[in-house]
Amino acid sequence: MEDATPAKVTLTDIARMAGVGVGTASRALSNAKNVAPATRARVLRVAEENHYVVSPEASRLAKGNTGRVALVVPHLSRWFFGSVVEGLDSVLRGAELDVLLYQVGDARDRHDFFERLPARRKVDAVVVVGFQVEDDERTRLETLGVHIVAAGGQSAAYPSVHIDDHTASRQAVDHLLHLGHTRIAMLEALDPDQPRLSSTRSPAYYEALDRAGIPVDPSLVVTAPWGGEHGAASMSRLLGHPDPPTAVFAHSDEVAVGAMRTLRRAGLQPGADVSVVGIDDHPLADLCDLTTVRQRPAEQGVLAGRLLLDLLRGEAPPQTSTTVPTELVVRGSTAPPRQR
Amino acid sequence: MEDATPAKVTLTDIARMAGVGVGTASRALSNAKNVAPATRARVLRVAEENHYVVSPEASRLAKGNTGRVALVVPHLSRWFFGSVVEGLDSVLRGAELDVLLYQVGDARDRHDFFERLPARRKVDAVVVVGFQVEDDERTRLETLGVHIVAAGGQSAAYPSVHIDDHTASRQAVDHLLHLGHTRIAMLEALDPDQPRLSSTRSPAYYEALDRAGIPVDPSLVVTAPWGGEHGAASMSRLLGHPDPPTAVFAHSDEVAVGAMRTLRRAGLQPGADVSVVGIDDHPLADLCDLTTVRQRPAEQGVLAGRLLLDLLRGEAPPQTSTTVPTELVVRGSTAPPRQR
Repeated sequence: MEDATPAKVTLTDIARMAGVGVGTASRALSNAKNVAPATRARVLRVAEENHYVVSPEASRLAKGNTGRVALVVPHLSRWFFGSVVEGLDSVLRGAELDVLLYQVGDARDRHDFFERLPARRKVDAVVVVGFQVEDDERTRLETLGVHIVAAGGQSAAYPSVHIDDHTASRQAVDHLLHLGHTRIAMLEALDPDQPRLSSTRSPAYYEALDRAGIPVDPSLVVTAPWGGEHGAASMSRLLGHPDPPTAVFAHSDEVAVGAMRTLRRAGLQPGADVSVVGIDDHPLADLCDLTTVRQRPAEQGVLAGRLLLDLLRGEAPPQTSTTVPTELVVRGSTAPPRQR
Repeated sequence: MEDATPAKVTLTDIARMAGVGVGTASRALSNAKNVAPATRARVLRVAEENHYVVSPEASRLAKGNTGRVALVVPHLSRWFFGSVVEGLDSVLRGAELDVLLYQVGDARDRHDFFERLPARRKVDAVVVVGFQVEDDERTRLETLGVHIVAAGGQSAAYPSVHIDDHTASRQAVDHLLHLGHTRIAMLEALDPDQPRLSSTRSPAYYEALDRAGIPVDPSLVVTAPWGGEHGAASMSRLLGHPDPPTAVFAHSDEVAVGAMRTLRRAGLQPGADVSVVGIDDHPLADLCDLTTVRQRPAEQGVLAGRLLLDLLRGEAPPQTSTTVPTELVVRGSTAPPRQR
């Protein structure tokens, strides 16, 4: 690449003209303490005469921290991840930090990131959005003094901001139970980016049915990868069931909206004929009249950003894990079961 | 913030130990040409003995370019913007560039960005995603040798990658005309981030009707801000029309899906009762069975990334503007008009 800046006076030039070493010149310009007043005055005068401006780059190198934070995100085009990043970015840039973006689409990308970043030591901290850091990756960053924070995902090993998946699922299933449903299906979503998610969103379903004295019918649980298309296919399977469910708990709004498409194509009306509830409060939930459990990813990003600032200032927060509350949002896709 | 790196040998130390100036040491380590072979050998030996590793930071400063690109994005949580960034990031990071993220939510944020960035000269280029750069902002960046590229938005003043909004709109309206509709409404969306969008998506509607010999009924054009909620409200207005439309052309998929919610709430079936077509092929279009005109924002991001690499390499591309083709995707929300 070409050099796009016009030729200009460098720190080396200033040092030479002031008759001092580059280190002294740098310390004088950055107001460090160990410079003789006369020397400092000389350096500043030379700098002024030559219109020399301290590069924030160079001054940061001298201070030893980079003023930069890496955001590591699996998918930028997906609402959840984009919203968390939106919240994070507002806080981190408000604190004058530079935000470096690292999109890591798959496991190999992710491995590359953790393999290469520390060696270059380009950031003071890494925020992982919606996925787990492996133990060896975490150890490597910690050894280098690079902080880790998880936004939109839970970890016992490093500070995190997240929802309580168990509570969110319970809110969704309890709503269906309160409406009087007893044939309740679950569309269990597997996300390669969040391998523990299905395990954190499923137990509440079994517990809630158990508490209500409803025996679990394993044929009403359909497990499929994340995403609307899979939700649609899983719903088709459930419609072929000899005793189909009257209500469906989907692990996410996109899965739920896919299921609603299948219902409509089959001539059934979500709500009146089959109830559907999701988790997220994705913007499309409102547009599709979907009842859901609201999580606020942008708020999770904001809180994770603030947590990170505390860590960087050396003010270790009293509790390193923050749970953002979720709430049920009732819309048209749920109703009492139709009398048969 | 704390200094997280362990104390280590600096370039200044190496220069002192090798008995040369810092500039010479830097040139020797970066294999620049104007260093005597014996001097270079001495510097390299000292560096090796002291386990000195060239900081990419320092070496970049010496070269005068930053190795960094700024992505300036109004909304990260919205699919279009997130997808463009996803495409950009894959290309730029593939070229070993660091990607700095700047979310500029409103006009003031945007002004701040252009006001402050150049003074700090932290990047070699700025990519603006889906909005226009003012003339004075552009001039300021160009004076500093900072490149500008627009991704997902058109400009005559700097290189850009975009769709042809006129063609996309024509594809949508022609589809409704081919189905036999003559009462065709338009939900005209105003986007503060893309002020020229309504003007680029609207003329094709008037031209297509004119070409088909259908007189324009201004009461069938509803103008509202961007977003699904506004689409829903605009559709309510149209349903109250004494002679309501049989088909609706919405400027975006989110507006279209909002309109579909209104139809369903009114007991009408999109497609069978009122046809709806959007522009985008947002993932929710497929989940909602919405007919639309597909644009590929991730591909726009990839192409803008490549264009930028060409600019940084000084290989000015023969045509600085790239138009990504759009295509009609027919789904269940459009059908011939119901016989009255």
